[in-house]
Amino acid sequence: MEAMIAEDGVAKSNQNREKAMRADYAALGEQLDRRGIAIDAILKKVEAFGVAVPSWGVGTGGTRFARFPGDGEPRDIFDKIEDCAVIQQLTRATPTVSLHIPWDRADPKRLKQAASRFGLGFDAMNSNTFSDGAGQSLSYKFGSLSHTDAATRRQAVEHNIECIEIGKELGSKALTIWIGDGSNFPGQVNFARAFERYLEAVKAIYAELPDDWRLFTEHKMYEPAFYSTVVQDWGTNYIIARETGERAYCLVDLGHHAPNVNIEMIVSRLIQFGKLGGFHFNDSKYGDDDLDAGSIDPYRLFLVFNELVNAELAGAKDFRPAHMLDQSHNVTDPIESLMLSVAEVQRAYAAALLVDREALAGYQQDNDALMATQTLKTAFRTDVEPILAMARFNRGGAIDPIAAYRASGYRRKVAGERPAVASGGGGIV
Amino acid sequence: MEAMIAEDGVAKSNQNREKAMRADYAALGEQLDRRGIAIDAILKKVEAFGVAVPSWGVGTGGTRFARFPGDGEPRDIFDKIEDCAVIQQLTRATPTVSLHIPWDRADPKRLKQAASRFGLGFDAMNSNTFSDGAGQSLSYKFGSLSHTDAATRRQAVEHNIECIEIGKELGSKALTIWIGDGSNFPGQVNFARAFERYLEAVKAIYAELPDDWRLFTEHKMYEPAFYSTVVQDWGTNYIIARETGERAYCLVDLGHHAPNVNIEMIVSRLIQFGKLGGFHFNDSKYGDDDLDAGSIDPYRLFLVFNELVNAELAGAKDFRPAHMLDQSHNVTDPIESLMLSVAEVQRAYAAALLVDREALAGYQQDNDALMATQTLKTAFRTDVEPILAMARFNRGGAIDPIAAYRASGYRRKVAGERPAVASGGGGIV
Amino acid sequence: MEAMIAEDGVAKSNQNREKAMRADYAALGEQLDRRGIAIDAILKKVEAFGVAVPSWGVGTGGTRFARFPGDGEPRDIFDKIEDCAVIQQLTRATPTVSLHIPWDRADPKRLKQAASRFGLGFDAMNSNTFSDGAGQSLSYKFGSLSHTDAATRRQAVEHNIECIEIGKELGSKALTIWIGDGSNFPGQVNFARAFERYLEAVKAIYAELPDDWRLFTEHKMYEPAFYSTVVQDWGTNYIIARETGERAYCLVDLGHHAPNVNIEMIVSRLIQFGKLGGFHFNDSKYGDDDLDAGSIDPYRLFLVFNELVNAELAGAKDFRPAHMLDQSHNVTDPIESLMLSVAEVQRAYAAALLVDREALAGYQQDNDALMATQTLKTAFRTDVEPILAMARFNRGGAIDPIAAYRASGYRRKVAGERPAVASGGGGIV
Amino acid sequence: MEAMIAEDGVAKSNQNREKAMRADYAALGEQLDRRGIAIDAILKKVEAFGVAVPSWGVGTGGTRFARFPGDGEPRDIFDKIEDCAVIQQLTRATPTVSLHIPWDRADPKRLKQAASRFGLGFDAMNSNTFSDGAGQSLSYKFGSLSHTDAATRRQAVEHNIECIEIGKELGSKALTIWIGDGSNFPGQVNFARAFERYLEAVKAIYAELPDDWRLFTEHKMYEPAFYSTVVQDWGTNYIIARETGERAYCLVDLGHHAPNVNIEMIVSRLIQFGKLGGFHFNDSKYGDDDLDAGSIDPYRLFLVFNELVNAELAGAKDFRPAHMLDQSHNVTDPIESLMLSVAEVQRAYAAALLVDREALAGYQQDNDALMATQTLKTAFRTDVEPILAMARFNRGGAIDPIAAYRASGYRRKVAGERPAVASGGGGIV
Repeated sequence: MEAMIAEDGVAKSNQNREKAMRADYAALGEQLDRRGIAIDAILKKVEAFGVAVPSWGVGTGGTRFARFPGDGEPRDIFDKIEDCAVIQQLTRATPTVSLHIPWDRADPKRLKQAASRFGLGFDAMNSNTFSDGAGQSLSYKFGSLSHTDAATRRQAVEHNIECIEIGKELGSKALTIWIGDGSNFPGQVNFARAFERYLEAVKAIYAELPDDWRLFTEHKMYEPAFYSTVVQDWGTNYIIARETGERAYCLVDLGHHAPNVNIEMIVSRLIQFGKLGGFHFNDSKYGDDDLDAGSIDPYRLFLVFNELVNAELAGAKDFRPAHMLDQSHNVTDPIESLMLSVAEVQRAYAAALLVDREALAGYQQDNDALMATQTLKTAFRTDVEPILAMARFNRGGAIDPIAAYRASGYRRKVAGERPAVASGGGGIV
Repeated sequence: MEAMIAEDGVAKSNQNREKAMRADYAALGEQLDRRGIAIDAILKKVEAFGVAVPSWGVGTGGTRFARFPGDGEPRDIFDKIEDCAVIQQLTRATPTVSLHIPWDRADPKRLKQAASRFGLGFDAMNSNTFSDGAGQSLSYKFGSLSHTDAATRRQAVEHNIECIEIGKELGSKALTIWIGDGSNFPGQVNFARAFERYLEAVKAIYAELPDDWRLFTEHKMYEPAFYSTVVQDWGTNYIIARETGERAYCLVDLGHHAPNVNIEMIVSRLIQFGKLGGFHFNDSKYGDDDLDAGSIDPYRLFLVFNELVNAELAGAKDFRPAHMLDQSHNVTDPIESLMLSVAEVQRAYAAALLVDREALAGYQQDNDALMATQTLKTAFRTDVEPILAMARFNRGGAIDPIAAYRASGYRRKVAGERPAVASGGGGIV
Repeated sequence: MEAMIAEDGVAKSNQNREKAMRADYAALGEQLDRRGIAIDAILKKVEAFGVAVPSWGVGTGGTRFARFPGDGEPRDIFDKIEDCAVIQQLTRATPTVSLHIPWDRADPKRLKQAASRFGLGFDAMNSNTFSDGAGQSLSYKFGSLSHTDAATRRQAVEHNIECIEIGKELGSKALTIWIGDGSNFPGQVNFARAFERYLEAVKAIYAELPDDWRLFTEHKMYEPAFYSTVVQDWGTNYIIARETGERAYCLVDLGHHAPNVNIEMIVSRLIQFGKLGGFHFNDSKYGDDDLDAGSIDPYRLFLVFNELVNAELAGAKDFRPAHMLDQSHNVTDPIESLMLSVAEVQRAYAAALLVDREALAGYQQDNDALMATQTLKTAFRTDVEPILAMARFNRGGAIDPIAAYRASGYRRKVAGERPAVASGGGGIV
Repeated sequence: MEAMIAEDGVAKSNQNREKAMRADYAALGEQLDRRGIAIDAILKKVEAFGVAVPSWGVGTGGTRFARFPGDGEPRDIFDKIEDCAVIQQLTRATPTVSLHIPWDRADPKRLKQAASRFGLGFDAMNSNTFSDGAGQSLSYKFGSLSHTDAATRRQAVEHNIECIEIGKELGSKALTIWIGDGSNFPGQVNFARAFERYLEAVKAIYAELPDDWRLFTEHKMYEPAFYSTVVQDWGTNYIIARETGERAYCLVDLGHHAPNVNIEMIVSRLIQFGKLGGFHFNDSKYGDDDLDAGSIDPYRLFLVFNELVNAELAGAKDFRPAHMLDQSHNVTDPIESLMLSVAEVQRAYAAALLVDREALAGYQQDNDALMATQTLKTAFRTDVEPILAMARFNRGGAIDPIAAYRASGYRRKVAGERPAVASGGGGIV
């Protein structure tokens, strides 16, 4: 397996930190032991946990006002795969990359080869009918899968089928559909007819889905449409999954909900009715801010994982949620943000594993609200960093991925190889 | 038919206003004629339109901080029916009263008699398991239909069945269930189990529903529960209606949604999937403010009616939404607020009837967003007051209900008969 | 004065509509007369009312996901001025254009000449330190006026001073500052120090402001910064205006507030404390959606104008608010959207002029909440379209600007002259 | 000093836990030592930290829908003081009680005596003009300090002055004013005149404030008023404090803001301009939910304390914020909720003390957003429970206050002494 970062640099970085990590791990182990928890069992679960990295996540994001590129921006999907390999090398928790077509369109053989150099696989394929690609004959300005024009809908369906075809060659097992279709004005769109058209189009895509694939549809309250959005919430998303078929599931992006909404409850509902497909992890304070996972409200992330672990332990039917990060890194080095975001997701998972579920069930039964919530809080406030560090270390990664990454000079190196990109923005306000 | 307000007073009030009303009606008729609309057809529809008044709406509301009673507060359901009769007499648009048990518990025969004096009928029955009634054996502090304790759930189910029994005697044809079950702390409740228990309880109630009745369940984002609510949104409500049975429908209260949510789109979805039961009309700026219908965002109310009229004209399957006001009148005379709120609901209906739907469908097909939204705006900004006034006048009501009511001295009169109530509040903060 | 649209086409369009308009105007005049209002006085005020058009508003907007250009997009500020001339010709309510530097940088003499061909003047100058311009030496990626680096702050200050210099040549009398400075992560920025730096920089700009100019600063809750924004709300904006000097004022953009916020109350506060500078009109349902003014919540726009008219009639001290549209037209012809938006702003103004303020003051004094709010509603629901149409007609514009514009074939013509632009987007997600 | 809970019971509870606590404390000390932090210095600060308990907090709260009383509810202020003594005995972090007049009106001598039995002092006095007290001559239905009627305003001013008088006898040093004045309908209130009246009334109260007292005014977005509130946000609150005088400060209640608002930034602004008076701690998910501090978003509470500790260490001018809990306990034993809430506030304080501020300042200067936010996260995720437990233990309290409290049987005991209260609610909907 190739390594983008020199192994000896990682080893040296770990050497300086191993002793402290082991001390912290031991102290935590002792504390957990007192609480009746075997730390090694938790460690094993954390080691087995993985999150997919979106190919577009390793480039610098932006807003409609501007994009301020970083140094050494990846030029194409092959550069992106190398950046993803860095993340996987140091965190050992991101074994797959999620592609976005047409941005990542390339010869599938070359893609497989490029990924296999680093032992990387391919997660869900992502289609794009929210912007017009070069040479595209019909525009998505007024919609794609729900467009009033049948030819435009057909073009959008065919694009999704192409994504499946590419994915089949790459070993992907899922297609994720997120569209921006909607309206900016009351009356612009007939809600019911638009949704009928959408359902018909999704069913046409589903008809081409291989038997061992899953279809993920994603809801979002608003943006890019600012009055109505065709898949605006989990209620509509649930109907889609239900009407489309057994292998159709709902994808939850943590930033796609109305203010104040209880997201963990939506997660529970989708699990209960067998329709949770997976997640786009990120965090948000206002809208679809696409901030780093756990950076704004880490307790909310924990509460989501509390539902996931609960379902996992209860053996919920048809429960195998896909995990993917989906973030926009505007002011940080994307590789660094992704490495820390993976750790935040692992942290939420590890903490959720510490919940004393038997005690919790008892408090719930007895309506002992205070002790029930304390049971969650006790798990949440436990500092599981030693477990995460040990998991990385055991699997060949870095105890402190940021430190190892910065010490490696990777960003400086690629900045020398990849030409600088001009700042963008202006005009779209 | 008895009249609570002296008929000659109403006649005198109308006399002063009839000429101006006829002039405005004629001018509007001319304008509508130019737009290809026959004003008399609109008038006829408005005359046939009715909204139920909630019995509790004629009392002064309050908040957890205080209740400031008004003069002449109704002492019991019989006083309330008299107040409702005033509203119907002057507006001729509120032919039914919606009862709330146990608040309105009384001998059904007496209730029917009291209502029939004024030609009033009974709309949906409302059960109450969000507070503990006098002499109730098990408390709803920790839930009712979703309580962890089976006996408490059974008690709540039986209360709903009692509501059906009373309603059967009164000629009601629907039961509305709104519960406050939920939690104030993460972990207090197991979301999935609570919802399973809820579904089981609702099915037990549904089993007792007469064949010609409908069951309405109401969703609400929060309050009185402040972390999670068992029927938190239309997605959950839709699942309930779907799982429960053919005669189970969703009720939409305009103030029960997350900030910024597109409510008219939810209305469209429920119509499309055959599960819109009806409305609790009111308005809100922040939460479940229970303000007067149309008082904060009249265009939103119009957009809701735009969906309803669209479905009505399209002959949507199983479409016969129940209309009820559900408001809290804290600083106004409840009778006045209810009379104006009825007018606001009629206004939204009348304006929605003016939408040029053929033109609209064309603009939608062509993605002419500007003309589509203008088509709605043209209808909305038409001042339909002359139509509403004429509808009231034609059916024996008041051209200006507030003026007629104030001139009648009704409030002064009942304030003399009904003893003053002490201010409440304090302690619940 | 040159005309971009053939005058005879406009005349013909008006000819078809004049009779109906006069009939409607007469009927409305009669109704208002009964209400004690002289329609001609209202007409005169509406005729005198003007709104500035932002130069960037005539181009098609977009989101971070995509931009879908329209036909005949303006290539430069001179094309933009021609488009603005169309709007002014047909609406007669947009006598000035507001420039944005560097986007509109050009020889001031040529700019003046270009505008004077159409009798257009220049409104407030807008600086841009939220994106990096070509050839700019220091980046605004991490801030501009509040940047931690003094040289970057100086560059941003100098850019604003340059805007003043250009504006002086053009006859502008105000500088508007909106910046995106803020942070995406807790801890990224020291709130207090950043605000100190901001205040220092604004004072340096203010020091260069000519005596007869005003400085407008604009607040915004979020975007492009997603955790904190240096001028996040009116409270901070008020402090800025207060600390900076007498000619420093707050600008209110209707889409820049937290969900549910009572904007008309903020307007009242700023008037009361002498710091309301003016408006960026638009509408929003979710965030800074930049939708067409009045398209989502026309009553809110009316309530804002209710405050403005109240202050105007009361002779509030130092009250002369600047009016500007600031919208993003993603799915409509920008010229059409701007023409209708101007009409919506005029509509709100005209309706607010109809409020019976003496009656209102009496109801307020007596706490007659119902009649107070009815007094506003009566004004709002009056269809003032005949007044707006007559104002346009009297001043040489079009009774129906959209119809006249579409009939003129202007968009088709410029689409032939101005080369098509490729769709954008993709990559910034 | 008297003890409400048997001392030997507490000792026994501690005995079982001391060894584990010491082990955890030692392990944490070692870890902090590696990070350059002396745990004992942190411990000392935590030991010195106190939060006031509101007298009304020890009673069960409720909503407008219902109140479900708990066992052994305090009958009067003397029962409440005993409950507060329990909290202080076990947590050793709540040395003062905050009274609410008229609810707690009693002979000041008896009050002082009752409190001094337990070594308790009195924090800020709270006035109440949001509900009508028994025997009050003029109603606050339409406002108090901002009422249109001068006599009602005078009555409200005098009530506040009475609160000062009582407070002087009790040794209080601050008056907190929160009012519900506002409106439920557009037009009901003239915003500017209402605020003028409010300012005049507050100045009249301020004129009676002793020289060593402070005046705290509290803002709140909505509830009990649902369209406008006279002190709606920190901007208005800042103007009040500024216009009123040097000893006038703003009080921040964490649940009183618009959705998504960045509260820690408001805290920073108020500190920067010398007007932060203090806090009403609680948590919220939707509105003014009054949930237990830190129960919904513990990271937000930490971020607030990050600002406070930053100001404390920087020696911000005139910085001595008052800390008070203000919560509504609807489903828990209030004593338990208050004990845990105090711990959550201490936890946020302790964690904020662990922030490496020198490193943070460097990252901020260099725009290293990732390391800046990690610096906060590292502090936040440190489990400081051993420090809190040791602080309680060292000062004579309980290592685990909930366990000690439950073991004591206190609630059972008072339930035997204090008569049961009937469930309330119903009618106010």
